[in-house]
Amino acid sequence: MPAPTFDSLSAFRALLDALPAPDAEALKAASARNGMLTKPPGALGRLEELAIWVAGWQGREKPVLERPQVLIFAGNHGIAARGVSAFPAEVTVQMVANFRAGGAAINQLAKCFGATMAVHALELDRPTADFTQQPAMSEAEAVAALRTGWDAVDPAADLVVVGEMGIANTTAAAAIAAALFGGAAEDWVGRGTGVDNHGLKRKAQVVTEGLARHTGLLGDPLQVLRCLGGREIAAMSGAMARARAERIPVVLDGFIACAAAAVLHRAAPGALDHAVAGHQSAEGAHGRLLAALGKEPLLALGLRLGEGSGAALAIGVLKGAVACHSGMATFAEAGVSEG
Amino acid sequence: MPAPTFDSLSAFRALLDALPAPDAEALKAASARNGMLTKPPGALGRLEELAIWVAGWQGREKPVLERPQVLIFAGNHGIAARGVSAFPAEVTVQMVANFRAGGAAINQLAKCFGATMAVHALELDRPTADFTQQPAMSEAEAVAALRTGWDAVDPAADLVVVGEMGIANTTAAAAIAAALFGGAAEDWVGRGTGVDNHGLKRKAQVVTEGLARHTGLLGDPLQVLRCLGGREIAAMSGAMARARAERIPVVLDGFIACAAAAVLHRAAPGALDHAVAGHQSAEGAHGRLLAALGKEPLLALGLRLGEGSGAALAIGVLKGAVACHSGMATFAEAGVSEG
Repeated sequence: MPAPTFDSLSAFRALLDALPAPDAEALKAASARNGMLTKPPGALGRLEELAIWVAGWQGREKPVLERPQVLIFAGNHGIAARGVSAFPAEVTVQMVANFRAGGAAINQLAKCFGATMAVHALELDRPTADFTQQPAMSEAEAVAALRTGWDAVDPAADLVVVGEMGIANTTAAAAIAAALFGGAAEDWVGRGTGVDNHGLKRKAQVVTEGLARHTGLLGDPLQVLRCLGGREIAAMSGAMARARAERIPVVLDGFIACAAAAVLHRAAPGALDHAVAGHQSAEGAHGRLLAALGKEPLLALGLRLGEGSGAALAIGVLKGAVACHSGMATFAEAGVSEG
Repeated sequence: MPAPTFDSLSAFRALLDALPAPDAEALKAASARNGMLTKPPGALGRLEELAIWVAGWQGREKPVLERPQVLIFAGNHGIAARGVSAFPAEVTVQMVANFRAGGAAINQLAKCFGATMAVHALELDRPTADFTQQPAMSEAEAVAALRTGWDAVDPAADLVVVGEMGIANTTAAAAIAAALFGGAAEDWVGRGTGVDNHGLKRKAQVVTEGLARHTGLLGDPLQVLRCLGGREIAAMSGAMARARAERIPVVLDGFIACAAAAVLHRAAPGALDHAVAGHQSAEGAHGRLLAALGKEPLLALGLRLGEGSGAALAIGVLKGAVACHSGMATFAEAGVSEG
């Protein structure tokens, strides 16, 4: 059966309303197996729930993590001209070249954890519009970006990590978070790649202007994405949705990835049931955003790089969880006395 | 040059007083390299300091983690007869068989992260003495156990994880921690493999009795190990010390491993400079013990299994850190503009 597709935001929304649930039989079988493994009950902590969760999405009692896929989306932003980043906008295209040459952090992490990696640069020479002046994207542009992400997912992957590169995109992500969850711009902006206090004030100002400009549209999460987001952010939303449609578990990365995820979360309750928070980053509002999503991070090591780096690092935790669950002996098999 | 060895506790202490420092040149070169990699300064958070730390101990600007070694030591305890565990003492030997057959959690984690694994069972049919009645070990027994650990380290390993198995050993570890750092027995005992409130009271009572019995000797950390520890705990101390003598970084596991580490820490300031805390376990006093050691855990996922499992899981984090540091392009190499 070919994957469903979409050619409008309303068609995408209809897909979100029809997302599949995990496999109840596999969940039950994995949970029963967990109780028989040679360890005191609960002694593997979160690794136990993670393995059972992967089992449910993969539809098998003994899940595997042999084909993780890392997807990186890159986009440029009209608001970069407002001085919201510590780096110039040309760094986006330079970093895409670095990804393709294998020199970035995410390349090393993907290789380290046995993941394939694909990089999708979305019209870098055509930045989105400055969202303080007009919607960042037309509907056609937003749909095209969502589809880039949707089409990028390998249906044969057994785990998906979605990352990004885009100078100025913590500002876009802050605007999305503020529109979806309320609060002041100041609650959601952070230092990104390292802006100073003046840069931080500019970011808050830009977010405030963006929210005011599009106020009538912000009740609709997909319009929030279109008006305040960016191509790489929409592509991330599309990829996460496609992974769910394929019942592939997703590891969420940092603040920007979580803003993309939050669009799905607000558009369709439960749309992120297949997603785990890979880490909590050092970007100021990431903890607040994770709390809004109801996600507890696996790691908290002060990363603030994006690129899917924190999520890729968390592949190791998930691999460990799945390896224990699927590989351990039961008490009966090992002849070990139960407590 | 053959490795130094020892045949008494005082000779072991002399080795602790002559432990090597990290390579200052390698630390400097790795730190300089870190500043040139294609990422905003500090954006990889703790991964950056971890990679530089490994570089210092391995003595190279670009460290590698290709030969991690997991060492598991097992011992039996006289105090098991006091009802301090949820599991019967025969589980120690059963779990050793499970380790050797490849069925335990640590087998899966070692395999997952490319580590070799060796299991050392220390006279399981001859438990230590009940430390409420007499010292757990004679000096000869303590030295033999320390040497088992010391000799178990592969000098060609590039990382060492030290784990344990021993029914009743959270009680021994609590006694060691209380003797080394003060506080009441109740501050240091926890639920181990899952004792109920009565079991917890018995553990505190046994620790209190042990501390009272040996009070005159407890100013000396190596006497604390001999009087209140166990063979697998002493072996862990010996292995950690040998790793340091070989300048191999160590990942600390849970409460029992940290009690073994704490003996070294109290015997020789700085003896754990080559050790990082792999995780914080769910065992109640582990956080307190890590704080006493001045170590911030890499992971906190609620594990409480022992076996080196939390530390083995943290190998993934260290591998990711080293992969980024040693594999990333510099700004100059990649042609990326600096902020």
